[in-house]
This record gives sequence, C-alpha cells and structure tokens, in this order.
Amino acid sequence: MKLIIKNGTIVTQSESYKADILVEDGKICAIGTAFNEDGANVVDASGKLVLPGAIDAHTHLAMPFGGTVSADNYLAGTRAAACGGVTTVFDYPMQRKGSGIIETIEARKEMCDEEACVDYAFHCCITDLNDGAILDEFKDAVDYGVTSFKCFLVYKKEGMMVDDGTLVKILLKAKETGAITNIHAENPDVIDLNIEKFLKEGKTSAWYHYLSRPEFVEAEADKRAIHWAKSVDAPLYLVHMADKEGLEAAIAAKMDGNDIYIETCPQYLEFTCDVYKREDGRNFVCSPPMKGQESQDALWKALKTGAIDTVATDHCPFQSYEKDWGKDDFTKIPNGCAGVENLYPYMLSAANEGKLSFNRVVELCSFNPAKIFGCTEKGSIAVGKDADIVIYDTEKEFTILIDNMHSDYDHTIWEGKKLHGYPVMTYVRGNLVYDNGEFVGKPGLGEFVKREGRK
Amino acid sequence: MKLIIKNGTIVTQSESYKADILVEDGKICAIGTAFNEDGANVVDASGKLVLPGAIDAHTHLAMPFGGTVSADNYLAGTRAAACGGVTTVFDYPMQRKGSGIIETIEARKEMCDEEACVDYAFHCCITDLNDGAILDEFKDAVDYGVTSFKCFLVYKKEGMMVDDGTLVKILLKAKETGAITNIHAENPDVIDLNIEKFLKEGKTSAWYHYLSRPEFVEAEADKRAIHWAKSVDAPLYLVHMADKEGLEAAIAAKMDGNDIYIETCPQYLEFTCDVYKREDGRNFVCSPPMKGQESQDALWKALKTGAIDTVATDHCPFQSYEKDWGKDDFTKIPNGCAGVENLYPYMLSAANEGKLSFNRVVELCSFNPAKIFGCTEKGSIAVGKDADIVIYDTEKEFTILIDNMHSDYDHTIWEGKKLHGYPVMTYVRGNLVYDNGEFVGKPGLGEFVKREGRK
Amino acid sequence: MKLIIKNGTIVTQSESYKADILVEDGKICAIGTAFNEDGANVVDASGKLVLPGAIDAHTHLAMPFGGTVSADNYLAGTRAAACGGVTTVFDYPMQRKGSGIIETIEARKEMCDEEACVDYAFHCCITDLNDGAILDEFKDAVDYGVTSFKCFLVYKKEGMMVDDGTLVKILLKAKETGAITNIHAENPDVIDLNIEKFLKEGKTSAWYHYLSRPEFVEAEADKRAIHWAKSVDAPLYLVHMADKEGLEAAIAAKMDGNDIYIETCPQYLEFTCDVYKREDGRNFVCSPPMKGQESQDALWKALKTGAIDTVATDHCPFQSYEKDWGKDDFTKIPNGCAGVENLYPYMLSAANEGKLSFNRVVELCSFNPAKIFGCTEKGSIAVGKDADIVIYDTEKEFTILIDNMHSDYDHTIWEGKKLHGYPVMTYVRGNLVYDNGEFVGKPGLGEFVKREGRK
Amino acid sequence: MKLIIKNGTIVTQSESYKADILVEDGKICAIGTAFNEDGANVVDASGKLVLPGAIDAHTHLAMPFGGTVSADNYLAGTRAAACGGVTTVFDYPMQRKGSGIIETIEARKEMCDEEACVDYAFHCCITDLNDGAILDEFKDAVDYGVTSFKCFLVYKKEGMMVDDGTLVKILLKAKETGAITNIHAENPDVIDLNIEKFLKEGKTSAWYHYLSRPEFVEAEADKRAIHWAKSVDAPLYLVHMADKEGLEAAIAAKMDGNDIYIETCPQYLEFTCDVYKREDGRNFVCSPPMKGQESQDALWKALKTGAIDTVATDHCPFQSYEKDWGKDDFTKIPNGCAGVENLYPYMLSAANEGKLSFNRVVELCSFNPAKIFGCTEKGSIAVGKDADIVIYDTEKEFTILIDNMHSDYDHTIWEGKKLHGYPVMTYVRGNLVYDNGEFVGKPGLGEFVKREGRK
Repeated sequence: MKLIIKNGTIVTQSESYKADILVEDGKICAIGTAFNEDGANVVDASGKLVLPGAIDAHTHLAMPFGGTVSADNYLAGTRAAACGGVTTVFDYPMQRKGSGIIETIEARKEMCDEEACVDYAFHCCITDLNDGAILDEFKDAVDYGVTSFKCFLVYKKEGMMVDDGTLVKILLKAKETGAITNIHAENPDVIDLNIEKFLKEGKTSAWYHYLSRPEFVEAEADKRAIHWAKSVDAPLYLVHMADKEGLEAAIAAKMDGNDIYIETCPQYLEFTCDVYKREDGRNFVCSPPMKGQESQDALWKALKTGAIDTVATDHCPFQSYEKDWGKDDFTKIPNGCAGVENLYPYMLSAANEGKLSFNRVVELCSFNPAKIFGCTEKGSIAVGKDADIVIYDTEKEFTILIDNMHSDYDHTIWEGKKLHGYPVMTYVRGNLVYDNGEFVGKPGLGEFVKREGRK
Repeated sequence: MKLIIKNGTIVTQSESYKADILVEDGKICAIGTAFNEDGANVVDASGKLVLPGAIDAHTHLAMPFGGTVSADNYLAGTRAAACGGVTTVFDYPMQRKGSGIIETIEARKEMCDEEACVDYAFHCCITDLNDGAILDEFKDAVDYGVTSFKCFLVYKKEGMMVDDGTLVKILLKAKETGAITNIHAENPDVIDLNIEKFLKEGKTSAWYHYLSRPEFVEAEADKRAIHWAKSVDAPLYLVHMADKEGLEAAIAAKMDGNDIYIETCPQYLEFTCDVYKREDGRNFVCSPPMKGQESQDALWKALKTGAIDTVATDHCPFQSYEKDWGKDDFTKIPNGCAGVENLYPYMLSAANEGKLSFNRVVELCSFNPAKIFGCTEKGSIAVGKDADIVIYDTEKEFTILIDNMHSDYDHTIWEGKKLHGYPVMTYVRGNLVYDNGEFVGKPGLGEFVKREGRK
Repeated sequence: MKLIIKNGTIVTQSESYKADILVEDGKICAIGTAFNEDGANVVDASGKLVLPGAIDAHTHLAMPFGGTVSADNYLAGTRAAACGGVTTVFDYPMQRKGSGIIETIEARKEMCDEEACVDYAFHCCITDLNDGAILDEFKDAVDYGVTSFKCFLVYKKEGMMVDDGTLVKILLKAKETGAITNIHAENPDVIDLNIEKFLKEGKTSAWYHYLSRPEFVEAEADKRAIHWAKSVDAPLYLVHMADKEGLEAAIAAKMDGNDIYIETCPQYLEFTCDVYKREDGRNFVCSPPMKGQESQDALWKALKTGAIDTVATDHCPFQSYEKDWGKDDFTKIPNGCAGVENLYPYMLSAANEGKLSFNRVVELCSFNPAKIFGCTEKGSIAVGKDADIVIYDTEKEFTILIDNMHSDYDHTIWEGKKLHGYPVMTYVRGNLVYDNGEFVGKPGLGEFVKREGRK
Repeated sequence: MKLIIKNGTIVTQSESYKADILVEDGKICAIGTAFNEDGANVVDASGKLVLPGAIDAHTHLAMPFGGTVSADNYLAGTRAAACGGVTTVFDYPMQRKGSGIIETIEARKEMCDEEACVDYAFHCCITDLNDGAILDEFKDAVDYGVTSFKCFLVYKKEGMMVDDGTLVKILLKAKETGAITNIHAENPDVIDLNIEKFLKEGKTSAWYHYLSRPEFVEAEADKRAIHWAKSVDAPLYLVHMADKEGLEAAIAAKMDGNDIYIETCPQYLEFTCDVYKREDGRNFVCSPPMKGQESQDALWKALKTGAIDTVATDHCPFQSYEKDWGKDDFTKIPNGCAGVENLYPYMLSAANEGKLSFNRVVELCSFNPAKIFGCTEKGSIAVGKDADIVIYDTEKEFTILIDNMHSDYDHTIWEGKKLHGYPVMTYVRGNLVYDNGEFVGKPGLGEFVKREGRK
C-alpha cells in the first residue's frame, strides 16, 4: 500500500519545509517532490502542517485506583488518542506485590492486543523488590522492550511508595541494564499530616486537596529524587512536574551535566490551583494538583528555554459520579483527569498563538519521548520511520466539549476551551485512524512498541 | 565571696580590652579598674586572656548506645569539661518510647545533681510522639527550662528516627512554644543499602564506615530538614554539620531569612575521612563520619564568614575494648569520640595561630550557644552574668595526651595534637574548678541551667 | 571630670543589661553598680536605654556639587548630628585633579577644627592618580589616620569616575597599605544614554531621574566592583546600596569568603521610587535613587540576616530653591538629601517597633562602622572606649518636622515621619552636646579621629 | 545537473538514518531510496556519514591587525575551509571610523566575488556610531542580508572598543531591526594594567600574555555584556567563550529565558594555558587566550548539556616570522591562530571517540549557526536546502600537519594532532570542492549568503 501526502509543510523537531511524503508498508520511504502517484492514495495537504504523530508518554488506562478503575479502557483511551493526533501511548502497568515485571506487562499487553487503536508501550511501576528478584528481572524487561520503570515517592499508605534505599537500588539497576527510572515525586508523610489536620478541622472541600499537597510538598520529593540520581549518576525522568522550586532544581542538575529529564502536563500549563475553589473543583483533582501562578510561569519559561523535555498527559479520567464521592470530603475523590485527546491540539494551539514554535511542540510531544524512551521507529518525519503522521489545519477553530471527545468518560476539565488550529487526519503506520472529527480506525490495529535500551 | 581578676585582657564575642573584673556571689558585678581589693581573692591575669567559659552545646554522657554506655558519666564528663574551660554542658537525654519529656529529663537531672562539676542543660531527644501526648508536653518542658528538642533523621532500625510528618509536627509545635528543633541529618535507607552491600562484599574495615555514609548521605538529610523548616517557617538547629553541600544549602537558607543555625565540631575541622584508612581508624568512628578535604575547607570558610553559629563536640567516648568490637566489622564499632575537654583549647589555639579571631571563637563556643538556647546568664563577660570565666595563657604550649586528660576513657583521637596556648584557670559562677592542669572543683557544684524560650 | 550614668539599660552590639557607667576624662572607665558618686555628675537613666553614639559613616558637608555647595557646613551638619545621637561623622573630601591626599584632607580638617560639634573622620575620594603619585601617598594617609579611599564608578562627565584599571590599582594599593576602598557603584554610560533619550523625548520630571538610573544601572556597577575586589582579593566597602540584584551579588561574595562590606541608607529603607512621582519628587532626588519595593524588601531582609554591615546617611542636603532648579528638568536638580539627624532615631524607632533588635541597630550604626574603619576608641559601651553615649527614651513620641531639626537646610524628605522613641541626651567624650531637643554643645569640640589601618 | 549520494548514513542535528540524497540544481530535492539514476552523478557513500557542510561562524580573512594582515586571504581561507568540510564562512569586516556598514561590507564582498571557494557571509564589526548614522543604517544592512553586528568590549587603545552606552544602543537597535549583537568580551583596562606591570617587571614571555588576560578578565566582560542584554531584553551572541565563570553566567541567563547564544572554539577545547609555557608559546597567542583546566572542563560539560550553541574557529593565522616579532615581548605577537580547516574534523573526531554525538556536532557546527544567523538555505540535510554536503569516513586516520593543510600560513598550532575519522568529500551547492585530500573547487564559486533577520 502506497500513500503520498503532498503539498504540505513538514514540521519536525527542528525544521519546517515544504515537501511531499511517500509512505510504503507503513514506513516513510521518501521525502521529496514529484513522486510517482501510480497506485497511490494521494492526500493533498496544501496549506496544512504535516507532523509526526504525538507520543503520550504518560497514561493510565483501565487503571484500578481509589476504589474504582479509570474510566478509559484501552479501547476508549486509544480511540481518543487517535482522534487527538496521538499515535503511541505509554501506559503504566502496576506491579502488584509479589508479581514479576514481565508477568505484569503481559497481562496488560493481552488487553491491548484486542483493544488498542494506536501503538502502545509500557513503563512498569515497581512497588516491591520481591527480595531482589525484581531487580534481577530488569535485564529481561529491557530485552522484552520495556526500558523504563516507575517509582512512587508517594502513596505510602497505599503500599505503592518505595523508600530511598529501594529507589537507589532501582536507579542503579536501571542504569546498569540500560533502562531509566521515572519518578512521581511528592512527600507522603507531610501530605498525610496535612490531611489529618484538615479533616480534624472540617476542611473538606477540593481546595484542601491542593493545600494538603502544595508546592513545597512536591518540591521536597523532586529535590530528593534528583539528589539520589546525581549521587549515583543514574538517569532520571521526573513525571508531571508542576512546581517551580523542583523544576529549578531539576534544571540546575541538568545544566550540571546530569542525565535528568523533565515532563510536565497540559493541565499545569493551563490551570492554576484556583480551579479547586470552583464549585466543580473536585473534577480537577489529580496528583500532583495544579499549583500557583508562579509555578505555571516557570513551566512556560522552561518550555521556551528547552529545559523541559516532554509534555504528556497523565490521562486518568473518572466519571462524574465517581468524582462526586468526594463532594463532601476531598480525600474520597479519585485522583486523575482526562487529557490524551487534548495533548497535541492544546500544545499546537499554543504554537499557533506564538507561545512556542511548532518545532518545539513536535520535539516535546513526539521527538523527545521517542528518543528518551527508545522508540527508534517513532517520533519523527524522516525516511525509515513509521508513518505515524498527523495533518494539522492551523485555520480550524475548535472548542473542546465533552460531546466532541472520543473517550468513555462523561465530562472533561477542558470543557469550553477554545483552540486555534486542530488535527484533521491521523495516520498510524500509514493507516488512517482519524479523519476530520471521526474515528476511522479499528481496535487491535495498535501494536506493542518494543523499545531499545540506553547505551 | 569577692573575686577580682585583674590586669588581664577581656575577650568577648566582639571586643578585646584591658580591664579588671569584680565578682560577687558568683556574678560579674563590675568591669573596670582599681577595684577595692579588701577581702577579695585577687587573681593577677597579667598577660593573659580572660574569656567567658565555653558552653559545649552537644555532649552524650552516660549514654546507652550500641550495646554499651558512653564512657564518661556525668562526673567524668563534666570534670573533663572544667579542665577544658567548658563551664556549661548540654546533654541529650533520650526519650524512650512511651515516656514523657519531663520524666526523661528528671531522671537525668537526678544523676547530675550529685555528679555535675560544671553547670548543665538538656536538649531532649524525641523518638515517639506517644499519639501526640509528647507535643502537648512541649509547653511544660519549655516552662521547665528545656527549650530545645532533637530529632534523628537517621537510626531508623534503632527506632530513633522520626519520619518527615513527625518532624514537621515537632517543628511546628516547637515554634509555637518558643522552643527550637535540633536535627541529626543523615539518610538511614541509603546507609543501610550501602552497609548491606559492603558486608556482602566482605568490606568491613573502618574505611567502609565512611563509604557507607559519605557526603551525599548527609547532604540529602540536611537539605530535607532545611526544606521543611523553611516551608513551615520554624527555627532549626543543625547539629554536627560536616559536609559542604548541606552546609551551603543551610547558608543559602539563612541568607534567605530563615531562622536556621549551624553547628560543627572540632573533629570535622581537624580530620578528614583519611583517618579511616589508618590502622586505628575504628577509634575515629562517629556519625556523621569525617568527610573529605573539600568539606573541611568549606567548614573553615564558613567559620570565617560567620555562617556557622556554634562549635560543639558531640562528646561520646567509648573505651578501646569497645571500639575493638568492630575491628573486623565496622558496623560493630560504637559510634562516638571524646572531645569536651578539647573544644575550647583547640579552637583558641586556632585563633592563636591566626585562623580566626579570639572574639569569633568566643562567639562560636560561648556567646552563640547561650543566645540560641536561651542561657540568659551565660555566654559573656558582662555585668550581671554568671562568673563563668576562663583564664587563657597564649604562650603555654600543650600536647594532648590521654595522660593529661581528665576523663574516664582510655584513649583519644586527639592524642599528640600540639596546641599553642591553653586555659590555666576555669571558674564556674566564681568557683575555681580548674587550676593549671589540675581539677580543683567538686561533683555536685554544677547546677541545672533553666533556659528561656524564644520570643 | 566624673560622670555617672545610672539605672539605665546598656545596649551594645550584642547584649542588653542593666548597669551603671562611670566616665572619667571622657573615657568609660567602669561599668557596674554602686559607684562612688562623690564629685560626680550623676545622670539618672532609669527606664532609658544607654547606647554608644552613632557613627554616620557617610556624609557630605560643605560639598561643592551640581553648581552649588551642600547646604550643611561642618558646623550645621555636626550640630544636627549631635542632636540625632551621632557622635562621629565621616566626611568625604574630594581630591581635585593634581592634588594630594593629605593636602586635600588638611584643607578640610582646618574647617572642622573650628566648626565640628562632634568628632569627625575622613574618607578621601580619589579622582586622579596623578601618574601614580597618589598611590605612593596611600601609606602616608594611613599613617595620618585616613584609612579609606573612595572611588566613583559614575560621574564620568564630571571627571570623577575612575576606570576599571584605576580601580584595580587602588584596590591593590589600599590592600597593601591596610586601607579599604569605598565604591559608589552606578554605570555612567547607560545613565547618560537614558538621559539623552529622555531629554530628547521631553521627559523631564523627577520620575525620569529614577528611570535614568534604575535597578539594573546600579546592579551592573555593583557586580563589577565586587568582581574586581574578588579577583584581586582586596577589601571593598559598597556605599549606599539600594538594589536587590547588587545586594544579592555582594552577599554571595561575602559568603564565599571575600572581604566585602555593605552599607545602605535610611532613605532606601523608607521610601521607594514612587516618591519621584510626587509633586515634590525633586526633593527626593539623590544618587542612587530610591528603588522599587522588591529592592526595599531585600534590604530589610539583609538587615535582619546580618548581611548588611552598616547604615549611614549619605547626608548631602540642598535648599529648596536649589532643588527647584530642576523643576522642569531633572538633570538640573542637585543630588542629595538630608539625613544625619535622622539616622539613629529612624533605625532605633524601627527596633522599637520590633523590625530589628536594638542590638542590631547599635551594630549597624555604631559598632560596625567603628570596626570596619578602624575607630578603635569608638563604637561601643565598653571600658576604655570614648564616652560617646546616647540616652534613648523608648516612650517618647516624635514627629520629624523641619522646625525641630538642627541643620541649615530648609526642608526635609522626612517631614511628618512619626518615630516611636527618641534620643534625649548625647555625650561626646563625656561632654553633653544634646539635651532633650536642644543643642547644648559647641563648635570646635569635635576632634579628628585618627584611625588605624587594617591588619 | 543531478547528483545522487547513496548508501550513506545521513546525520542531521537530531537524527541519523540510512537514505539516499537526490540533488538537483544545487538543492537537495529528495531523500529516500531507489532514485532514478539516469543522467546522474552517483556517489556511493556506503559505510560513510553524510553530513551538512559546516558553517564556520567566526573567521578573520585578510584582516589588518597588529601591524600586518592575517595570513589567509579569502582565496586561501576558503580553500582551506572547503578541505575541512566548511561550506560557509562568516567573515568579520571591520568598520573604520567614519565609514558606513554597507560600504564596509561591499568592499569585502568585492574581494570575495573573485576569491571565495565556499559560500560566505558577513558579521559587521562596529567601532564608531558616526553620531548615530550607523544605527540608522542597521535596517538597510539587515535588508542587505547582514543581520549581525559585532562589538568589542576590548581593544580600547586600538580604538575598536565600544563603551557600555554605545553597546546598549547597538543592542537595542539590533533588536529593533531583527539583527543580533556579537560580543568579544574582555576588559581592556585591566589587561593594560597587567601588561604595564609585567613589562615594567621584565616579564615578557608568552606566558604573560595569558597572565595579562586570565579568566577573570574575560569573565567580567562576559557578565557585563550579559547584564546589559538581559536588562534591555535584546539578543546576544557571545563569541569565543573560554572561561568557566562567564560561561556559567551565560548559561544561567539562558535558563532564565534570555535570548543569549554561546560560541566556543576548538582551541579552547584542546589546549589549556599551559601551552604558553612552551618554547613556541607565541604561536598559540590569541585573544582571549586558552584558559585553565577548570574552564576547559566547563566548556566540555556545556557542549554535552546543550548549553553551548556553536563551535567556530576565530581563524586568524599569522606567519611564523610575524609571530616571531613577539619572541622577546608578548605584546608584539599578532593575536590569532589558524583553524578553519580543523573545525569539523576536530569536532567529528571527538564524536567518533564518543565525547559527543555526531548529531550534536552537526548541531554545533552547522545547524545552529545557520539558525541563529538566518542562513535559511543552510545547515541541514533536508529537502529544499542547499546541497552543502560533507561525506565523512569514520575509519580514516589523519594527523594534522602543516603539509596537509590547504592554507597560506606556514605553521599550525594543531601540528601533530591525530584525528579519528576525516572528511573525504565536500560539496558546495552540489559542486564537489574537496576530494579526499585535494582541493578540487575553484575561486569565485562561493556566493554571498543573504541572510534573514530575526522575527
């Protein structure tokens, strides 16, 4: 099957130029002009941008959490992804105490085999070293194509936290095996202390979700994670960074030559903690919570300077009725919000408004996640890569409404957000999966991305 | 009883000048010249310096630790103090799980009543909040004259560590009640990880004591303690700081307006981690261990700039046979070294050599500890203060030998250290307790220092 | 002559305590209680504070500048000083091109001999090296008792600026001879550029005085001066610091072990640049100008942390009619404001309100200037020092009005400022010169302070 | 004319992949595989890397300086460039007092028209504002294709220095017109002071060239330039940075969101100031001089972290007999060294040894200079770009000798340097100009690069 996308402006992580793309067998096989169109499906992208598909490096699909399961299963989540220009999602399977890594991954992979509408990869969350057996499995996991592991410095009561010694062991073993360690950094003891205090005082609205985990609670754990990574010279990927102090510490460590990567999410770029004062504040509850204006400003600055490496979504939606469990007690609100379908449109709209360059957005949402996490066939419009391609119309106006989203959840924090420009087509390995508002792909098309380890 | 010390050069925390001192009833009642000598004990200090007695803000006497008890009981420890020009010692009683603060203090005070040769005060170590009952007792403790509490961020297995939530509760309650929180900052998880690894590899010499708790292990906990103190705007006193990175973080926080104090010890100023490579390295084992040259240089710089607030000893000696328990396994060495008798002579000798001013040494060893910890009658040669006075001969050469020390332990890390200048007389509230090499005081003379809380 | 000040609370740079002071022959000869009052002038200071006289380290008396001469000659200026509790003023004689240092000093000393109501010292401003002859004279100046030299990094057109090479030569020679270099740091080129632009645009109000020399214009020169002092390891005293960025650079350099001192002035602590928007903005014109709120906040923080060393006034008043010259053109306003009489009252009132301790104010306004500049007989209430003493009533309410000032100028930027507490008596070497609102001293009483060089 | 480069590995600023390149009319018109080879010149790059030609953003050809003219005229310099894989050189025409910018440029352009063997662009050095007329010409210069101006903060005596006010005017006008300001940052006053001192002391060897302009002399001017650029929010390009302190200041400013770019040179990466102690030290004399090991380490770190933007050569060779003028007096040595032919081979060899990635070297030596300076047709292997292409053999061993260089100078500081890998072919807009050791191009082939201004 031959596909030609012609007359568009190709936008890569560093350049923009007019050229046509020739796709065969799901791969980009040439970039140029005047290709032979015989037998080809020719798509005219005149006046449009032609981008590599986004890679959402952070989603939680079908995730058991807070007494329920996140609202998007693999089908719904990846369908939404496709419609938002995301051609690869990273999911975070959670190792249960006593289980192995590959066992954990395979259980999830099985679900994806049938459901996934876009390609998928896994970071594996480690919660228990199983007396060291898990560390011994790192090498196998990397060979399997799972080259990143996640640790929580938070969720102590939930049994998901690793202590500093465990963290250091994981950092060292990941480094040794060519993997990288992802960290969710917040401090559980101080969160619990705050929660205990607020509940005792009858302060139970969503606003106290923020006040129980404000800037300094995240910053402490950020700085600690960075400290250990520096001390043992191991690679580190900080997920969903949202606070200025931690961000600045991470940037300083990067500039000092450490192998540290920073991810943030659209919700931290768009909202501040003020949303928790709203009537529907509970719908915005996620962890870490949105922070103050100073933190948001610092994030935008770091996007511009190049200090932030990736933007991903932490997609983890819950239904309204589940969010309502915490109407009178913020500790009962399931943590997480929807986002996978909004990532690329939101960031590209920001580029369209001049806040960042389109190239920078491609770098943040596609090229860098591919590079950091070893997706060697992804993340770029270049000869030899998978034909994961998004055609973007800079003129199309779009307002996010729950009705024009393609997920299973019933509300969105992005409701009413106006975007300037929107994706009009998404291709996964040359297959059209989204066409101007409609999902046109099919479950099971998505493939497991076998990743390469670091050298 | 009337005492006149005449013709000496008085050295305070900020000035040096020639004048005589008139002491009555244990108090300094005038400074001037030509006092009426009728009925007075007149001491000629011509050519000598006249200093306020030192306050050793950090000692562990009769302390159960590592399967034994520290070698100096209150009698021996305070006798040695007197002979080193220390007129007040702070001891660290340890709250046992379930016990109260005043109960803990009183048990120790009873021992001191009979034994103490110099005045004494207590910081209380908190290891257990007793479901909050301990916090409720802070106010009583402050009223009792115990206005400082200590937390360990280390010694997790030993049950002495407090977690971050407990630490924050203590910081807040201390602040509320006019007390201050002292912190021993090292990270237990990473120490344990290192120890486990070294033992497994058969690396058991004293050198591995250092390698299991190197600079970055202390720095992490320093920075964490500072972070919490800043975040909740509570006073903090960092004991025995020995590493550059933590020191620099503390200085930055002080300059940013936080109420943070820094203590270091003579052993970190004199020795580096190289001592652990010596045949008798185990004798130098204490926690935190001596660090590298860069850290030592940073400490000296901070002494000069004024950034360090106090120098104290962490006096906690063990007998040779006890140190020998760890000959073949560094984890079996009781942690701690002798120092109370060497504090003032060592620091004053440094001044005599031009490394610091004499005034700065008085500030570090006497004025500042008195001020930080609320010893309102101590720490200065001024009208109205206790006549805790040391006469110091800048010309006297002295070599530290176990034979000229006045303690009960049988060896010292300071053996052979040559000092330029030495104390020749020590007065505690006007009572001569040390006279040119001889202890001339008596047990029970020392009184409890009832301290004032912070405003 | 014998003077006893009894029942007061003595406040030194580091302590406060109740005691009496015995003064003989202009010196403090004893501090204690129950002095023999025979033949003594006994002053009851019950309920009052007894402080060392302030040292205003920065005044410009009878100074030719901006086409006129500053409004206070030595008589008026030192009379005002006495009435504000200042017992020593430092004046800044200006070397004219081709003149020598001692020649410059002696011309001024002659004027003081007859006029000075309080003691006086000189910093000498260097504007021309006279082919190196001036450097050769540094040693003589130090022997003469002039141990500090000032350089302007600004006033290029006025011929007062030194270039960086000259500055470095002066720093090195001052270091070699035991002197210190004072710097007025602003960047002339960029000021001139701004002025040129504003005049061209018809922007001529006092507000443009500020905008022509905003924060960054001072900060550049601060940082440059600090850079050179660090690079050649020479002592540096930054006069009238007013901006946050420069201040932070200076603090960082101090904490890094450099011999750097920071002076600020009451006007920067009380006013912000907003005063230049007032109708009478021209009256506030001085250089550097008041800065924004962030800078003021940084100054107060640094006063609290101890990072700032001295507070002095830059007293340089001009009459209203002279200030009016610049009504329609800010470049025609003579630069400078009155302050010498307000220094101590302003700072002590701040202490009385709890912003700083009284001890800290004594350190900033008396002890530190004496110590930094080698006034060995000044700056402290201690046996052997000059009896420069201020009695301060913490209960006295006072409003600054031009009518209750003791200077020759006809207006003050401090008009209407309410102070809590006020000096009631000032003694210069035991002589009462100010008594509860009245100047009771006499011209010619003031003596030249022969200062000691640094070691 | 049609050229196909096949079977090579294309290396861009961010990716490496196997593909063929089709060139027509001097442009890259397609990247892919299986191109129709009819009538094409087909080059087999099997096993080779295919790179965009380097852009040396800093050369001085035929430059009058130090009483002579730099040894390479445009012909020799660009011939050497071609043989080193440099396909575009930036030269620095020097505005003479009173002359205009375009007048200055055109005089040089005329020389290039006949001589240039590779493409060329101009930065114009500004030494005199001609009462503002020069600023008025900036817009015309940008329209002409000269979008960058250089200021010297040094060479005061030589009449080339601009003062801070002039610098700020240039920064502002450059910003306004879409240009950028390049800065040579060293402090002339302190250099002169040092030189005066050394000559007086008879210290005249090349080592004193270094000592007269050591790290802190460059750092001061770096920091000052950065300060002004930040303060007026204008773009800044720091040429030939060589010292750690300035580098760190520049990085901090970049991370704070300022539009600042950093260039360093191969000589600072390879040599330290120790070369000036060599017998032939004079041959290494350039300004700024090589610095100490710490600075070199900081440069390499910043190359790795991405903080440095470009590597260029400051190519400015002099003949041995000219260098010899300073045998007995370092001030008589013409400043400058050869480098244009060594830039790409040196940096690529470093990549080949694993110090940097090949992509990073392409970014530093080609992509970034093109992007920063508006060479829209250059700097990348992408469809539509000029076919400036280098074929590089990673296996070829090469030792730099004066005999295998293609320049007119008679010695090189790089003599004997062994490189791993070497360029084998260079194409300028599709024309082969270098073929395996031989220059095969011709004078006059090179074209003026009309650059675009910044938006």
